[in-house]
Amino acid sequence: MPVTSKPDARPPRPQVEDPRLSRADVAGREHNPQEALRHFRELLDRQQLEENLVSRQHSQRQDLVESLVARQQASELTRNIARLHPADIAFILEGLPLDQRSRLWHLVPPELDGAVLLEASDAVRETLIADMDRGEIMDAARQLDSDDIADLVPHLPSDLVPELLSSLSREDRDQVQSVLSFPEGSVGALMDFDMVTVRQDNRIEVVLRYLRRRGRLPQNTNKLMVVDEAGTLTGVLFFESLLIHDTERLVSEVMDTDPVYFRTDDDAHDAALAFERYGLVAAPVVNAHRQLVGRLSAEAVLEDVVESAQQDLLSQVGLTGDQDLFSSIWEAARSRWLWLAINLMTAFAASRVIGIFEGSIEKVVALAALMPIIASIGGNTGNQAVALTIRGLALDQIDGRNARYLILKELGVSLANGALWGSVMGVLTWLLYGDVHLGMVMTVAMVLNMLLAALVGISIPLGLGALGRDPAMGSSIILTFVTDAGGFFIFLGLASLVLGV
Amino acid sequence: MPVTSKPDARPPRPQVEDPRLSRADVAGREHNPQEALRHFRELLDRQQLEENLVSRQHSQRQDLVESLVARQQASELTRNIARLHPADIAFILEGLPLDQRSRLWHLVPPELDGAVLLEASDAVRETLIADMDRGEIMDAARQLDSDDIADLVPHLPSDLVPELLSSLSREDRDQVQSVLSFPEGSVGALMDFDMVTVRQDNRIEVVLRYLRRRGRLPQNTNKLMVVDEAGTLTGVLFFESLLIHDTERLVSEVMDTDPVYFRTDDDAHDAALAFERYGLVAAPVVNAHRQLVGRLSAEAVLEDVVESAQQDLLSQVGLTGDQDLFSSIWEAARSRWLWLAINLMTAFAASRVIGIFEGSIEKVVALAALMPIIASIGGNTGNQAVALTIRGLALDQIDGRNARYLILKELGVSLANGALWGSVMGVLTWLLYGDVHLGMVMTVAMVLNMLLAALVGISIPLGLGALGRDPAMGSSIILTFVTDAGGFFIFLGLASLVLGV
Repeated sequence: MPVTSKPDARPPRPQVEDPRLSRADVAGREHNPQEALRHFRELLDRQQLEENLVSRQHSQRQDLVESLVARQQASELTRNIARLHPADIAFILEGLPLDQRSRLWHLVPPELDGAVLLEASDAVRETLIADMDRGEIMDAARQLDSDDIADLVPHLPSDLVPELLSSLSREDRDQVQSVLSFPEGSVGALMDFDMVTVRQDNRIEVVLRYLRRRGRLPQNTNKLMVVDEAGTLTGVLFFESLLIHDTERLVSEVMDTDPVYFRTDDDAHDAALAFERYGLVAAPVVNAHRQLVGRLSAEAVLEDVVESAQQDLLSQVGLTGDQDLFSSIWEAARSRWLWLAINLMTAFAASRVIGIFEGSIEKVVALAALMPIIASIGGNTGNQAVALTIRGLALDQIDGRNARYLILKELGVSLANGALWGSVMGVLTWLLYGDVHLGMVMTVAMVLNMLLAALVGISIPLGLGALGRDPAMGSSIILTFVTDAGGFFIFLGLASLVLGV
Repeated sequence: MPVTSKPDARPPRPQVEDPRLSRADVAGREHNPQEALRHFRELLDRQQLEENLVSRQHSQRQDLVESLVARQQASELTRNIARLHPADIAFILEGLPLDQRSRLWHLVPPELDGAVLLEASDAVRETLIADMDRGEIMDAARQLDSDDIADLVPHLPSDLVPELLSSLSREDRDQVQSVLSFPEGSVGALMDFDMVTVRQDNRIEVVLRYLRRRGRLPQNTNKLMVVDEAGTLTGVLFFESLLIHDTERLVSEVMDTDPVYFRTDDDAHDAALAFERYGLVAAPVVNAHRQLVGRLSAEAVLEDVVESAQQDLLSQVGLTGDQDLFSSIWEAARSRWLWLAINLMTAFAASRVIGIFEGSIEKVVALAALMPIIASIGGNTGNQAVALTIRGLALDQIDGRNARYLILKELGVSLANGALWGSVMGVLTWLLYGDVHLGMVMTVAMVLNMLLAALVGISIPLGLGALGRDPAMGSSIILTFVTDAGGFFIFLGLASLVLGV
């Protein structure tokens, strides 16, 4: 969760001192960290270049001068970095190759370390933490809010965690442990504690006095939480209600008594859909006894959605969601072994299907050239069904009951398109090889493999989902196996029957 | 944009009257419209069943009774619907097959029509509008805020738009036309006008008086916009500043003078990343002269992100982002023709590559069985590179400069994995067919096709992006063509060289 929720240390936001700044300046500083990334890459490259010069020249005096220059550049870099939002620093670090990333990371002011770690993606965060010693990690973590510490804990060296927890206040420690007790993907794991709670039997005037005494309010909040004496959520009080109502009235009279709220064990993805659906900014989170335990912010939800946005794209082809674009070749290669091995096995199995029909291929060698067309069309049709199903599941549009309807519809689409384009392909085959029976085999095989592809394409994500797995994981690889092996078997089997080879 | 931004007609949110409601009740009513969808499907099915009974029995008296029952059920349905949030109604309509959707749509209270149209996905909205007459459409549109009308206009029958625009107030019409003037995917097209603007030279007290007189404030806002006499944005004033500061102070003294703001022509996707990065709730939108023209809300951004989340998954396999799961088979089949035809052509071309080597296959029929393995591994490796690149582009992590680095890295990964697993496959082939040269061909072909796959897998999305196209569009189909045709050519070409066939 971004650090902007830290009330006492509002991070330096990108500055816009002069309203007459040109377009490029404003965009660059305000919400286009790409510019900053380019800038830092240039500085780091220049530094590297000069270091290389130094090591080549071997002149002691030159060394001294160059190292002064290097030190000067380092302090210029540090100054530039300190002006950036922690999220932008994380973005820049993510965009740098490992060696430059490590050098820049050491130049980030220590007081921003915690915030930057939080903003970095999981894979990049690991490389940053690996670059820090115990003391630095402890200092970085202690700068953070308790919900943010909880986000960080799973990524810290495990022997360091007890020490970190024992260094916190009792309240913070309880909060950290409460967030840690909820499984990833639940609302409880995503919530924060950055909220102001008032009792429903207070008068507005009392609330206003309390707020003035309190000073800063949590950022990005538009309401106060209202509870009764047992800590049970009874409503929310919008700031506007404080502003527009008579200060003598009771909180319970002007509060909203039917807020949308979440339970700690609600699914974070469902919560995101609810935020989108009802246009929420923040919502109370309650426990099983409806007692207020935390807050879910649109910020955390948006972050969650953006992070998982392209996840399905990756897991479909057997990659995990969190890939560091700049991880080492060795690491990247290893992360792909499992599904590569699975793919090899499935491809080998499909190849054995062809092996069965080697006799037929020896007699009619055209079969070898035509069979990949059947497999390819099946693969594409099936992957379309897979993508539609994954999306429908993600948007909550598919359940057990309309799944049957969807399968029937996709089968209908495959039948229609298979008949149409299969006929085109059949005629083409007939013309090319002068064999009308081979053309007919082509048409029928195409229809059958497209039907198989639709059926299997919907069933794989549904089946994975029913097993409690990620519906996208490896779906494309499994699907391609079925449409390849199935396509070869259907086509070559039909051919050997019809052509008698 | 959700209707909750409509200040004078706050939609009926899901009610939670009794704090002791059971888990299922609360979740069902609050943020799980799946429950409601099931409920309505049952009611509609029951109604259908009874209508069928009526038409079978042909007894006049029975008819009368049954039609009374049907009417009663319709009014029960209408009552149930009226209690739902428009977003939930849209969700339910999206989850129903066309005939049930149409029946339920006619039961939705007319005063919710506009809000529901807005919340529905593009494809479903079309089917709903097709079910309405001109008067109904006009009434529905006129219920909406001007930015929401602008969202709706592109989906309305075009002859109806001038009539609709002329029925609006001058201010609303200007706002509608201003939003319409910005291209889809820009901040201008996504902004709303739901904001309160104050002058920087006012005292807080004046602002508070103004707010009390105004009554309701825009929902989901935590700040007022501050402008100077020329309408130029000079800052934002957080509600908390109104609450905690002395009312005698000037707005200019307590406002935040460096807010993150956007330009109307900024890219909506970049804005979403900025919202996520800086944890924004709402941000001012300015024109080229830095004059305040609108507001961008986290709500609109979240909606945009959720809607486009699985887009890449679909366009990769040649589907458009907005698919109605319940469109007719005919429509669905037609929507897939273009890329199906492209796929057929590419598959046919790959097949002709095999045709060149028919002589070799006739002599060594094992080649026919082995060549799909090369193609399959290449396809998977390439699709991984495609997915990584699409994701990197979407998250703004890839630019012209690190693209070279990424290509080199992916080539390295392919070389490492190709050498390792290609050797495994080579030995397996040797053992299976007892031909060491065939095994060597297998290994080398696998390495080469994986290198080709990595290179092309990164280049396709980058190239499409550079051409200003959707980087994902059809990428999987193009990639598979290259890895199929390339794989066949590499493997069969090598084989005919090495084995002399």
